[in-house]
Amino acid sequence: MSKGTETRNRIIEKSAPLFNRKGFDGCSVKDIVDAAGLEKGSLYGHFPNKESLAVAAFDFAWKETCESRTAGMNQIDGAIEKLKLHVHNSVVRPVFPGGCPLINTVIDSDDGNPALKNEAREALKTWRRFLQGIVEQGQERNQIRSEVEAADVVAVMIALLEGAMVLDRFDPKAGFLDKAEQHIVTYLNSLAVAAI
Amino acid sequence: MSKGTETRNRIIEKSAPLFNRKGFDGCSVKDIVDAAGLEKGSLYGHFPNKESLAVAAFDFAWKETCESRTAGMNQIDGAIEKLKLHVHNSVVRPVFPGGCPLINTVIDSDDGNPALKNEAREALKTWRRFLQGIVEQGQERNQIRSEVEAADVVAVMIALLEGAMVLDRFDPKAGFLDKAEQHIVTYLNSLAVAAI
Repeated sequence: MSKGTETRNRIIEKSAPLFNRKGFDGCSVKDIVDAAGLEKGSLYGHFPNKESLAVAAFDFAWKETCESRTAGMNQIDGAIEKLKLHVHNSVVRPVFPGGCPLINTVIDSDDGNPALKNEAREALKTWRRFLQGIVEQGQERNQIRSEVEAADVVAVMIALLEGAMVLDRFDPKAGFLDKAEQHIVTYLNSLAVAAI
Repeated sequence: MSKGTETRNRIIEKSAPLFNRKGFDGCSVKDIVDAAGLEKGSLYGHFPNKESLAVAAFDFAWKETCESRTAGMNQIDGAIEKLKLHVHNSVVRPVFPGGCPLINTVIDSDDGNPALKNEAREALKTWRRFLQGIVEQGQERNQIRSEVEAADVVAVMIALLEGAMVLDRFDPKAGFLDKAEQHIVTYLNSLAVAAI
């Protein structure tokens, strides 16, 4: 790896948790250069502006999050069990510092920062398609009832997980995440062809 | 109303949508004085600092949101129907500009701004207690099954609603809010003593 690529990667890795915790506006260029141990001028040698760095930082944070949430899913055959592991991974595995990068970016980039918004929108689409594919495969393999709307299941799973993740960090005693997982497990069981 | 109170209220009303859309860091004092048609000095005559104004603005935005979400609930007897109306209000009524002030503040005040964080935490607690009271009353009146855990129902409702609200604003075509409402309605029906 060239020294330039190495520095570029270090800037991304060090700034990703900052953007995720503080948001785009809340994270200053000074915060970033301090964290990466750089001079301000050197930062702009790697990224034309703060927005393009924020996009790269989001990609990095989201990739880490997805790897963590999909861990072990390939080793499981049944669609319902696969989805349950995905939910469990999302609930128990250490999330990226600052919480889920997707929901943070969704809210943070509500106004302005269109490049970051697009990136998060693509991430959400890809996540939905991935889970929807598992539900549909479960239907083809006669594990999930054919009348179930895959898009509905996925929308409920994602909205409940993301909502619970945010609220759980804010008020850990209320047990939002545990209750969300419990609820999704019961819900997924109710979709099975054979009662679980 | 004294002129001072009038000006104070105008500052709160004008800054609340700004804070809700842009977040605490993203909303500058200049944005606020511009929106309220004030001189910068006059702002500090009403609020000692930006943080105390942000708390007052949150209280205002949350009060408006709650009034909208609870509209008509008093006219309904059954606990399950009452909860369904609450969900429906949350889904169809115009939300405060920028989306739900609670979830926005939860994410925005993740770091720093402890006064605002406390205010949002209290708001979440009060909302949970309010809905929990309706579930428990439904159990006392033999409308909701006694073995149902009121806290679980409320956590799932709130997390799913808030998650769907955020995602729906971000990706309106995916139908997160409609699917969330549909899911909660089915779920609430399943809690009834007599099948609905």
